[in-house]
Amino acid sequence: MIHEVGIGIVGYGMMGKAHSYGYTVAPHIRRLPVRPRLRVISGRHRDAVAEAAALYGIERAVDDWREVVEDPAVDIVHVCTPPGTHAEIVEAAAQAGKAVVCEKPLAANYASAARAAGAVAAAGVPNAIGFNYRRLPALSLMKRMVEEGRIGEPRLWRGTWLSDEFLDPEIPWDWRFARAEGASTIADLGAHLIDLATWLIGEVETVSAQSQTFTRSRPGTGGMPPREVDNDEASSALLRFASGALGVFETAKVAPRRPCDFAVEVNGTRGTLRFDYARLNELWYGDAQEPGELYGLRRIRAEHASHPQTEGWWPIGQGVGYGASFVNQAADLLAAWPERHWTPDLATGAAVQAVCEAIERAAVEGRWIAVAEVTQHAAV
Amino acid sequence: MIHEVGIGIVGYGMMGKAHSYGYTVAPHIRRLPVRPRLRVISGRHRDAVAEAAALYGIERAVDDWREVVEDPAVDIVHVCTPPGTHAEIVEAAAQAGKAVVCEKPLAANYASAARAAGAVAAAGVPNAIGFNYRRLPALSLMKRMVEEGRIGEPRLWRGTWLSDEFLDPEIPWDWRFARAEGASTIADLGAHLIDLATWLIGEVETVSAQSQTFTRSRPGTGGMPPREVDNDEASSALLRFASGALGVFETAKVAPRRPCDFAVEVNGTRGTLRFDYARLNELWYGDAQEPGELYGLRRIRAEHASHPQTEGWWPIGQGVGYGASFVNQAADLLAAWPERHWTPDLATGAAVQAVCEAIERAAVEGRWIAVAEVTQHAAV
Amino acid sequence: MIHEVGIGIVGYGMMGKAHSYGYTVAPHIRRLPVRPRLRVISGRHRDAVAEAAALYGIERAVDDWREVVEDPAVDIVHVCTPPGTHAEIVEAAAQAGKAVVCEKPLAANYASAARAAGAVAAAGVPNAIGFNYRRLPALSLMKRMVEEGRIGEPRLWRGTWLSDEFLDPEIPWDWRFARAEGASTIADLGAHLIDLATWLIGEVETVSAQSQTFTRSRPGTGGMPPREVDNDEASSALLRFASGALGVFETAKVAPRRPCDFAVEVNGTRGTLRFDYARLNELWYGDAQEPGELYGLRRIRAEHASHPQTEGWWPIGQGVGYGASFVNQAADLLAAWPERHWTPDLATGAAVQAVCEAIERAAVEGRWIAVAEVTQHAAV
Amino acid sequence: MIHEVGIGIVGYGMMGKAHSYGYTVAPHIRRLPVRPRLRVISGRHRDAVAEAAALYGIERAVDDWREVVEDPAVDIVHVCTPPGTHAEIVEAAAQAGKAVVCEKPLAANYASAARAAGAVAAAGVPNAIGFNYRRLPALSLMKRMVEEGRIGEPRLWRGTWLSDEFLDPEIPWDWRFARAEGASTIADLGAHLIDLATWLIGEVETVSAQSQTFTRSRPGTGGMPPREVDNDEASSALLRFASGALGVFETAKVAPRRPCDFAVEVNGTRGTLRFDYARLNELWYGDAQEPGELYGLRRIRAEHASHPQTEGWWPIGQGVGYGASFVNQAADLLAAWPERHWTPDLATGAAVQAVCEAIERAAVEGRWIAVAEVTQHAAV
Repeated sequence: MIHEVGIGIVGYGMMGKAHSYGYTVAPHIRRLPVRPRLRVISGRHRDAVAEAAALYGIERAVDDWREVVEDPAVDIVHVCTPPGTHAEIVEAAAQAGKAVVCEKPLAANYASAARAAGAVAAAGVPNAIGFNYRRLPALSLMKRMVEEGRIGEPRLWRGTWLSDEFLDPEIPWDWRFARAEGASTIADLGAHLIDLATWLIGEVETVSAQSQTFTRSRPGTGGMPPREVDNDEASSALLRFASGALGVFETAKVAPRRPCDFAVEVNGTRGTLRFDYARLNELWYGDAQEPGELYGLRRIRAEHASHPQTEGWWPIGQGVGYGASFVNQAADLLAAWPERHWTPDLATGAAVQAVCEAIERAAVEGRWIAVAEVTQHAAV
Repeated sequence: MIHEVGIGIVGYGMMGKAHSYGYTVAPHIRRLPVRPRLRVISGRHRDAVAEAAALYGIERAVDDWREVVEDPAVDIVHVCTPPGTHAEIVEAAAQAGKAVVCEKPLAANYASAARAAGAVAAAGVPNAIGFNYRRLPALSLMKRMVEEGRIGEPRLWRGTWLSDEFLDPEIPWDWRFARAEGASTIADLGAHLIDLATWLIGEVETVSAQSQTFTRSRPGTGGMPPREVDNDEASSALLRFASGALGVFETAKVAPRRPCDFAVEVNGTRGTLRFDYARLNELWYGDAQEPGELYGLRRIRAEHASHPQTEGWWPIGQGVGYGASFVNQAADLLAAWPERHWTPDLATGAAVQAVCEAIERAAVEGRWIAVAEVTQHAAV
Repeated sequence: MIHEVGIGIVGYGMMGKAHSYGYTVAPHIRRLPVRPRLRVISGRHRDAVAEAAALYGIERAVDDWREVVEDPAVDIVHVCTPPGTHAEIVEAAAQAGKAVVCEKPLAANYASAARAAGAVAAAGVPNAIGFNYRRLPALSLMKRMVEEGRIGEPRLWRGTWLSDEFLDPEIPWDWRFARAEGASTIADLGAHLIDLATWLIGEVETVSAQSQTFTRSRPGTGGMPPREVDNDEASSALLRFASGALGVFETAKVAPRRPCDFAVEVNGTRGTLRFDYARLNELWYGDAQEPGELYGLRRIRAEHASHPQTEGWWPIGQGVGYGASFVNQAADLLAAWPERHWTPDLATGAAVQAVCEAIERAAVEGRWIAVAEVTQHAAV
Repeated sequence: MIHEVGIGIVGYGMMGKAHSYGYTVAPHIRRLPVRPRLRVISGRHRDAVAEAAALYGIERAVDDWREVVEDPAVDIVHVCTPPGTHAEIVEAAAQAGKAVVCEKPLAANYASAARAAGAVAAAGVPNAIGFNYRRLPALSLMKRMVEEGRIGEPRLWRGTWLSDEFLDPEIPWDWRFARAEGASTIADLGAHLIDLATWLIGEVETVSAQSQTFTRSRPGTGGMPPREVDNDEASSALLRFASGALGVFETAKVAPRRPCDFAVEVNGTRGTLRFDYARLNELWYGDAQEPGELYGLRRIRAEHASHPQTEGWWPIGQGVGYGASFVNQAADLLAAWPERHWTPDLATGAAVQAVCEAIERAAVEGRWIAVAEVTQHAAV
């Protein structure tokens, strides 16, 4: 009899949907040692969460996240609420002895992220941060090729994330526009980029940055007066890695007709690797050791059976989508169950948050900031 | 209490997997009036089908397809076996009063396809043919834009499907290389193209064609002697539509480093639409009525909420994959349940098969063949 | 003292411009043993040809092509008039002992093309046909890579040429719409494709084809009544090569927002090569002998110093345009001067015309036509 | 009788070749009020410059640039030497009353650039800086579309220039690796980007930056000992425009298999424009005012007759290359002759140099630098 692992999801928005999709599909795609069972989901609006539970195939809907954390049938608490709420929930789940999976960014600020990471470490529970894009075959292959030395020593990294989510100035104010409640654009979109940067290249030491909020006031909803926007709409940063590599980082939510276009490129001593999310089944690679007559980048179809994260998926050429990242994440976590160490974990999430916070501070203070300034200050 | 619809799947290969994925995910993506329940799957190898049932989340595994057809808990029989076996299974399922979904191509020849289509018509059961690509947002949008008149009157159609499935001459002989057992490459890959052609442009009247088998003998498996290959590896055809439009058609299984690259383009009196499966979330469109200063094709991100087949999927820019076509197909069928008419149905499958057979005959006989020659001959 | 080669150009339209550009630039790009001197240009409209001569930097303008042919200062007669006039001019030039370069298609029909080719052969003069695209680095590299065996034995060829030159039904009638005066679309655009096909793959043996003229009557100019159109606007063909390879061919002048988009692909036993003219500095290559983990096509930047037809051009990455094909053609011809044999020559032009004519006849007669039927019939 | 304008070129390297090509072809492409005559070229190596003169079609070769400046037959002195030498030559040419065209970057530092700009201003001679890429149809169209308001108010700019010119550590030391003699990579490649940034968006106020030299010592040539490299190989910067727009800038000469890949994108309140030099005949445009069902960027074929800088070039779809930028530049300058004001002029060149120098200083000093710090310091 295959063992069941009980899943409890906190939050029923897009991420709740994506992860319940991941748990539902994972056993269909990959042979797993355990079977996930979607036990319970929580949300503040009773009717909405009930509807979500029905849609996502989750057995029970509750309106208090504490019920998820305390449910004895739940083995993994999956946190999908806004960033500002993560630390408290993670802490409670860890103390209840649950394994924890937390959406990115880990928190709205580094102190809170460190608190969350500290809680799971203290409790000794398995924990993971939701950097789902790592699980795409193409980005997973990018990592493997860097590790195989196919581009030599990495020297230059660039990552850009362009969306138009905030473009329209008539979008009414909500929590995403309040820095204290939501994440900065730097952390919301950029945490994925920073994760990829550090995963591929290593530690970021210092940063310089700039931010801009073009629409500083937005209409209130339901007849409320306009409210001030204090979150960034676009930010860019220079990164200096510990290795001496240089990085360029940009995130924006005001780029017209750019829905979610993120791109990452690494140039090393020997080669170049490039990924464009809009064509997520492809990875571009150029090897300077090849003869000049073949000069150029090749478009690898990152769906070959020899590629990572393709196990159980479709024949080459058919293509996966966004959803595959969640399926692969769920499968990876369950495949390691009941092992103790998942990767990337909340400590990674906190380290990424430190870089994001350094970028935010560099933009505010108009000077280069060492990431250590963030982590040490928090440590004090 | 939501009504359950019992699904029985005949065949546990890639298509069995894809469709069980579709039924599993459909209720997660779209609110449906009924809930599919994967009751039973059949296959000739008892252990393998049991393993597949476990992986796909199907309740029961049997080694005789008749058990699927006869199971009273089964409302829909989903036929995923090789083409040569379809007609008999469809016939039995229809006679048992089951709704039938059959994989493409509908049969290994037109007579058999017509028999299958006749059986469901006679039985009056809901029936559908597995032209899953129609359910991709981009191709569905292509159809809608043609109907909206955005390219005017269609005049030229071209469709190409390139794979390398048969490239290696050391691949041992199996049923796919025997014309009598499997489908021709014309029908196997090309049925999708012909379906898109007739869906977008209308009836094909006459065809001219050529075929080639480059590797005419293949190693036997397990110490068996080499066997002759009598199925085509590459074929191309000219199509003349009833409307006067011209079509060009090509399929190949010997195109190196082309995994499953299909592309379809239509040029009309006013505009051009183009789809490349390798970038399946995009649709290219050029409108000759726009000012010359904007001359060119635009790359529509076929993921906008206003686009067909995007309901319930991810935010724009995230992208879906091959799997979405099966999910949308299952959702469309279930959304219409217990309605009587699904589309495309087996009659469409038979009509497509008639064109494929006309192409095959045109290649053999070295002359233009009217599709009516195929259908009338069969009718006699 | 460097030897001068006198150039005389017959025709002052776009091709007259392109080739005078080629002769002007060739010595700037490549060290040549001789220096071209643009002696004379002819055209029927005295003022217009004088203006063209001034613009193109040609010493003398005349309104009778015979003056070009008879000019003792002219060594090479470059024929840039409509196809229907080529044979007579070529014949006269050959009889005058001039080297002849003739624009494609060589003639409006095969008989006339054979006459032109026969004339230069009889006279023993150097002669060349204007298949300028061969001189692009990327297409030249494609040829070299086929010859190097990088795709193995070619099996499949496809070539498509899409333009919208005839799309607007309000374009008034002119000679391009009269089959007897101009070339068919098959030959006008398609001669380049057929040249590339035979250059890369070898002889075409038989063809099947279809043609369509969608706008059968066009307004007259200057108050003239509408006139009938009897030239094809779109045609497609199946080609069977002597080697057993299959080809697919399509040309159209009614493809909206497709200005001059031609693409050629070859699939061999080992690899794939693909060229898209819209990105003319690139060549796509896939090698099936590479490990699966690199599966895909690579985008070769066909500007490397090791590539053919790059000598004297810009550093890699800067890119050349259409004009480079004329410069390289002029340079190749002059570099071989006063050698006797240029390639491709008028015999090649006639052979290509035979295939084009076979395609035309196959479309009219609705049956497969052997190219030999065209050449033998003409020989009779 | 058409007036001749005498051209004198200082420097016979790639730029001397490119500009003599430009002057040679310009009258062929565009009807001009004057005819350029390539009178003289100078270079330090007598034989090499003589050979270049022969190849480029220049009447006279000299080994002292002063002869060019003093030649009474010369109307325009075209400066194509290394940046460190520009100011002195420009000054001498201006004092001799010659019109001056100077290659970019205008100088190796701002003080020297300001001196050059001051000299032509004082002399009142026509003067131009060689930002040739502005003359490409696609970039010229980009500018026009920004001015037409098609993207609304620009907010975000990004420009990246990747080459692999310095990648190989075995490339021996030459002047390009010495900061004092050549330009920084920031100015060498980046001056084009900064020019495009300020042309499209306006004044840059402050910058932050980082630079890296990965290979700090290179072999000497001809048995010389290794020499230290003090020029940057890769640099990146954040730009803050006076308008409040944000910019991201990156240049590198160590990006494997990236020959000369530059890309520029602008996001405004209403739309997005993007240019990739590797596909230089295209411009990507997205308009947020269009209906969502057409969401995406369109690929404008920047060759339409209505587009700027296409006059006299090939029919749409044929494509131009790098050379067209020089032809169009020469044509624009000559078309305005003997007008007094060319654009962009050396003052623009100096302004761009100020931004480049601010970037260099920001990288060295590790702090945000106001461009005014550079210009005011120089002014003192």
